[in-house]
Amino acid sequence: MSSVLHDLIAAFARIGATPDGGVCRLTATPEDGAARSRLAAEMVHRRLGLHVDAIGNMFGIAALAPSSREAVIVGSHLDSQPTGGRYDGVYGVLAGLLAVEAVALRAAAEPGKARRNLVLANWTNEEGARFQPSLTGSSVFAGTLALDAALALTDGEGQTLGEALGAIGCRGTEDLPLEPRCYVELHVEQGALLEEEGVEIGVVTGCWAARKLSLIFRGEPSHTGPTRMARRRDALRAAARAIELHYQLIEASGSGAHASAARITVYPNSPNVTPSQVQVWFEFRHEEAAMTVALGERFLAGVRTAIEPLGVDIEIAVDERRGTAALDPQGAALTLASARDLGLSAMEMKTIAGHDALALNRRMPASLIFVPSHNGFSHTPAEFTEPAALDKGLAVLTEVLWRRVTDE
Amino acid sequence: MSSVLHDLIAAFARIGATPDGGVCRLTATPEDGAARSRLAAEMVHRRLGLHVDAIGNMFGIAALAPSSREAVIVGSHLDSQPTGGRYDGVYGVLAGLLAVEAVALRAAAEPGKARRNLVLANWTNEEGARFQPSLTGSSVFAGTLALDAALALTDGEGQTLGEALGAIGCRGTEDLPLEPRCYVELHVEQGALLEEEGVEIGVVTGCWAARKLSLIFRGEPSHTGPTRMARRRDALRAAARAIELHYQLIEASGSGAHASAARITVYPNSPNVTPSQVQVWFEFRHEEAAMTVALGERFLAGVRTAIEPLGVDIEIAVDERRGTAALDPQGAALTLASARDLGLSAMEMKTIAGHDALALNRRMPASLIFVPSHNGFSHTPAEFTEPAALDKGLAVLTEVLWRRVTDE
Repeated sequence: MSSVLHDLIAAFARIGATPDGGVCRLTATPEDGAARSRLAAEMVHRRLGLHVDAIGNMFGIAALAPSSREAVIVGSHLDSQPTGGRYDGVYGVLAGLLAVEAVALRAAAEPGKARRNLVLANWTNEEGARFQPSLTGSSVFAGTLALDAALALTDGEGQTLGEALGAIGCRGTEDLPLEPRCYVELHVEQGALLEEEGVEIGVVTGCWAARKLSLIFRGEPSHTGPTRMARRRDALRAAARAIELHYQLIEASGSGAHASAARITVYPNSPNVTPSQVQVWFEFRHEEAAMTVALGERFLAGVRTAIEPLGVDIEIAVDERRGTAALDPQGAALTLASARDLGLSAMEMKTIAGHDALALNRRMPASLIFVPSHNGFSHTPAEFTEPAALDKGLAVLTEVLWRRVTDE
Repeated sequence: MSSVLHDLIAAFARIGATPDGGVCRLTATPEDGAARSRLAAEMVHRRLGLHVDAIGNMFGIAALAPSSREAVIVGSHLDSQPTGGRYDGVYGVLAGLLAVEAVALRAAAEPGKARRNLVLANWTNEEGARFQPSLTGSSVFAGTLALDAALALTDGEGQTLGEALGAIGCRGTEDLPLEPRCYVELHVEQGALLEEEGVEIGVVTGCWAARKLSLIFRGEPSHTGPTRMARRRDALRAAARAIELHYQLIEASGSGAHASAARITVYPNSPNVTPSQVQVWFEFRHEEAAMTVALGERFLAGVRTAIEPLGVDIEIAVDERRGTAALDPQGAALTLASARDLGLSAMEMKTIAGHDALALNRRMPASLIFVPSHNGFSHTPAEFTEPAALDKGLAVLTEVLWRRVTDE
């Protein structure tokens, strides 16, 4: 068992620890800053060259092949949800750190074998908890989100991501001085498929589609006491009806889609004022993009009909459609082979959750590797993966990275 | 037309003015502090003796009968809702200020007539927007809310009312050095009855009952993506179902009750985490207390049944029952007579909204006088009362106060 890995996971779990055994390390908070500082120290200690780019992505470079401009990137994220667990993201960063160290040692022992460099990355704001949308740093790196737009994202208090990164001293200036060749990420599954199937390694071949609809319900403020019921235009009543309808529609569809309405803001949110403006973040996820689009349309039509009698209008504030995507098939084959060669069981699967690997796949071939997650608990302090299972993931990751830096 | 009254209303409307023409002057914010300072200056300018008590209630004493220990109190509140109008509360304070001035002048012109003193009051946190419950300062003054408990009320950010009052320099030490004999309050109606009936003055004889139920819905955090729908325990879904049920029940009851669910807090309120804890503030108002109790019971039973399949538990955080109350019949008769003598039409009515007069009625005979409110708009920038109607209210208030300080 890699006691180094487990000691590191325990050490990072203390940064932003919550009383219930979980972690709250929101992007660009002092807790995130403390985790970043600790990671920087661990990188420097292992002689990795530290770079921080303009959106706060951290890179630790192992110069295995100084004459090459190419790099294999391995990474994940240190930020968490408010009710985060001890593994989501941080496991991939810390296992990545140790895998880079192991590959560098092996490269030093076998001079000439490494054909390219190896880089550990910590991507900014994967979770999208404090700033929406999620996958911010990796999307900027992939070139699908403009840096200015990313820096201008605001949290619930109106602070921008750029200001928040500056406040914790993590807004860098250095682009990664190497050309990315491919990306590899190791993560806990966040679902229960591997556990149910009794398989040790998940090889992710692609992702479910998602449609994210953020709706603003506009009513009118009035006194909750004397105002006649028929005169009220209650935006929260309309939002509540829409939330209930959303789940009814998903269940009735029999589509197997997943759906959520997990974030809401209410104005003025005073017990004595009929709410005049409410925003709700709705999500539809399905294996097929067309189904997420169709469910969204059906939902919008249903909501308009359902809330019309309430005198409340809706505005679509966000309509983000993430299609399905295939991750690098060559990377998947390599992961399957590496697991088999290490004597570990492996299976191909899809991811339903978003991951930096999906954002980075837009710029370079990307691979995603899962280890089992107990009961699929995720975004909760109950999140748990057996230490032995974490070690198996690290072993596969190390082997994959070795093959990636040495293959022709 | 009293241009002084309208100039004062306009001046106070600039303190905490919102771009849409309304006012946001939450209790113990800098805006509230600025309004209090302005009121203190207006009191001192009119030679009223200023006192501020430990819960921040402001008193301006007109010593009309220095040998008497008794005082008639007139007042209302300067705080507002986040979407407040230009009249709610502040009209009663400013009309009270001018009425006290007029009575004092008349008392000086008719020496020996005044048998007791007259006090203008601004009560702390009538609205209950930033700190719940509402009617805080008047309830402390009436002896029905302990000072310590009131000072310890916290806002959404965790700041206490005591700290907030201290921060704006409005936490005083002086109790009112007089014995209250009766209380009179002038307010805009906040409903549309007077306008619909074409009557100039409302004489409030009592109030509707209310039951305020704040429920905490407890589920479990999980990832909104991979977690199977059947495994989720979604507190926001349960809350939405309860809100819809709440209104359905009110409508089905045919009771004429008013109901609202206007405030909600959601944890962790991140788009990617199934909400694990949600609190909603529900209200039932009716002319009969028994009906508010019965509706609350029916609602609680219905909610338990409705959310049981969602695996979400509920806890009753607040169950506040306000019965009906009769205001001072002698005061009502006096107001009716004063209006008639001034040639104004008047009618008896009930108040559905809460008012400081209702809290103070527990300690002294209290009277409440309404002027019409256009369309009943209240807690909205659209709130409006004709200047001439405001003047009529001031005239009645002045006459009532004169009779109150001079009668035997």
